[in-house]
Amino acid sequence: MSFQFTLIHRDDRTSARAGELHTPHGVIPTPVFAPVGTQATVKSVSPDELRELGATLILANTYHLYLRPGADVIAELGGLHRFMGWDGPILTDSGGFQVFSLEHLRRVTEDGVEFRSHIDGSTHFFSPEKVIGIQEQLGADIIMCFDECADPHDETYSRQAMERTHRWAARCREARTRSDQALFGIVQGGIFPDLRRQSARFLTSLDFPGYAVGGLSVGETKEQMHAILEETVPLLPEDRPRYLMGVGSPEDILECVARGIDMFDCVLPTRIARNGALFTHVGRLNIRNAQFTRDPRPIEEGCTCYTCSRFSRAYLRHLVMADEILGFRLTTLHNLHFLVNLVRRIRAAILAGTFSDLKDEFLAHYRTIDHEVRMFNRAARVRSLRKDETRAPGPD
Amino acid sequence: MSFQFTLIHRDDRTSARAGELHTPHGVIPTPVFAPVGTQATVKSVSPDELRELGATLILANTYHLYLRPGADVIAELGGLHRFMGWDGPILTDSGGFQVFSLEHLRRVTEDGVEFRSHIDGSTHFFSPEKVIGIQEQLGADIIMCFDECADPHDETYSRQAMERTHRWAARCREARTRSDQALFGIVQGGIFPDLRRQSARFLTSLDFPGYAVGGLSVGETKEQMHAILEETVPLLPEDRPRYLMGVGSPEDILECVARGIDMFDCVLPTRIARNGALFTHVGRLNIRNAQFTRDPRPIEEGCTCYTCSRFSRAYLRHLVMADEILGFRLTTLHNLHFLVNLVRRIRAAILAGTFSDLKDEFLAHYRTIDHEVRMFNRAARVRSLRKDETRAPGPD
Repeated sequence: MSFQFTLIHRDDRTSARAGELHTPHGVIPTPVFAPVGTQATVKSVSPDELRELGATLILANTYHLYLRPGADVIAELGGLHRFMGWDGPILTDSGGFQVFSLEHLRRVTEDGVEFRSHIDGSTHFFSPEKVIGIQEQLGADIIMCFDECADPHDETYSRQAMERTHRWAARCREARTRSDQALFGIVQGGIFPDLRRQSARFLTSLDFPGYAVGGLSVGETKEQMHAILEETVPLLPEDRPRYLMGVGSPEDILECVARGIDMFDCVLPTRIARNGALFTHVGRLNIRNAQFTRDPRPIEEGCTCYTCSRFSRAYLRHLVMADEILGFRLTTLHNLHFLVNLVRRIRAAILAGTFSDLKDEFLAHYRTIDHEVRMFNRAARVRSLRKDETRAPGPD
Repeated sequence: MSFQFTLIHRDDRTSARAGELHTPHGVIPTPVFAPVGTQATVKSVSPDELRELGATLILANTYHLYLRPGADVIAELGGLHRFMGWDGPILTDSGGFQVFSLEHLRRVTEDGVEFRSHIDGSTHFFSPEKVIGIQEQLGADIIMCFDECADPHDETYSRQAMERTHRWAARCREARTRSDQALFGIVQGGIFPDLRRQSARFLTSLDFPGYAVGGLSVGETKEQMHAILEETVPLLPEDRPRYLMGVGSPEDILECVARGIDMFDCVLPTRIARNGALFTHVGRLNIRNAQFTRDPRPIEEGCTCYTCSRFSRAYLRHLVMADEILGFRLTTLHNLHFLVNLVRRIRAAILAGTFSDLKDEFLAHYRTIDHEVRMFNRAARVRSLRKDETRAPGPD
């Protein structure tokens, strides 16, 4: 079997775990943070640079690649790995999140979703079977069930969407034909603990090699997100990886690892980098700030990333203010290095039995940003789908 | 003396020469093509990548850096080399070309030029003394005299501008205080052989360590450009490097090396790369063309650049069509590699006595583009100053 999850160590004081995910394209040490390569490229970064900064898994988007250049094109070129020159593990989402983000541009039936392309307005149809077929053409190591993403605060809709997600999960499982890809189920159910528990139990009964928690980080509070994980994760099998979709701020990663999550992905580090917002251990630094005009220091003293080992805050500020591509590259490299390195330290701490200390110490110094949730709400996601994620390197 | 030009070999059949330009930041083998780093960055490319592809000299723009981030900022950060992380030789232009491109935004007097910033409309003043002071703050290895760029077809204006350029050249020479920078004079005179000869004689009398031919590639025909070089270059001292400003297509480089030019710079390879136009030995390939959608080949078989050794035309087309930053990086790397490598081969051929053969063979296969001149006329330059060169990575 080409896909296997090995649990190596469980933390005593939290639900944190360290493991290894074996895939046809290599081993992914978990916990893991996956940089997002929406259009078969992590924006501005080369595959070599991703390897160098320690990325062990990247995500690509089924919706975007289906529309452009087309899954058949990528299949003909040898699949996603060869197409984009990344020979490490890849995960593709199912496109469910994107087509449901299209709001007025989609129509949902039991069979699937008819939607219009954000690129040219052309009409398309995604069903569970179609989406599995596309993901098999793309050829990622980990593929996802087609799910319905509801407004997490609307209980009636959340229930309907969850039930449809379950029926679609069964259809996805039936539709797959490749044995070298792991298909993950996605738990839905909005902010409602009862629905989340139902969803976890149902999906577990289908016996997937991994489980995702979907529909979070879309407008609920941090407390709600934590509560849902505390209800859901204990119902998922211990010997399968658990993936929290679309989450990836430093503080969220720490809190969610503590609640038993193994895998994360998020556009946050790359998107905010293009706006000049840079991770440091005391919080985010906005490199556009005039105070950095003559600052000869690196973004953060002691950081070993490419950017910090070569360039000053003053130079980075200049590049970002002048909309220079190199600025977007260098800030992106720093933010990805920061997160990937944080997750590596988290894993080492779990193995050493010191995860809680690391978490407490990090959070004691790190100033979080209150409007984080707003930034990642549904409306912003829709906007980003139409603009930012398809155009480089515009601001949010 | 930290600056020295050594002539190593003269071609028998043409005026081509191979030499070495010694600067405080290293030796530049000539002929040389200098990639343009307008805002202290060659658009999208890192200093490491520039070194790797063989660049030995880069150009930065006094006008742009004076406005943003400010020459005093760069001086405080240790000068341009340290600021941008490039420890090889740098040349700064004088800003003359840019301020005269501003058309209605400038007012010229004998003392200098008052102009408005293309960034925020603020008013500034460049005189020969001011421009030398700025270039001394920036700290490039080679700096340029402040010159007046006239409409090359207007004889009266060309004469006036040339005469002022001569007076300003003398003032620049007087104004300089640093001994570790080489100040080049700039020959002007439009398309008028008589004026060009006058200008070459006058500037030579001031004894500069190098001479540029300015005011070309701004709307004249190729034949006019060649004729001017044939009139001008023989009047320049043999033991000084000759720099043709703003010229850099493969065919122009070959023709102008044959006429005795040692140094080139041009935004062409980087700018057209961001539009998807890629150099090959049979002419330019437009990667946006639908015929490349499923093409698994590199841009050019046998090319050893980073891009061609890793990525297919299909992937590059996808990236460029999707406005992905990595696409602009990879196409830029290829075009720069192509030109730098061509100039390296030219130099080797001069040394081997086979330059004419290389030139004939290259031009026999390379399909040139007729609208080239139009693309680089004055109007296009003004537009580019306002848009393209200050915004990444928009199309022309």
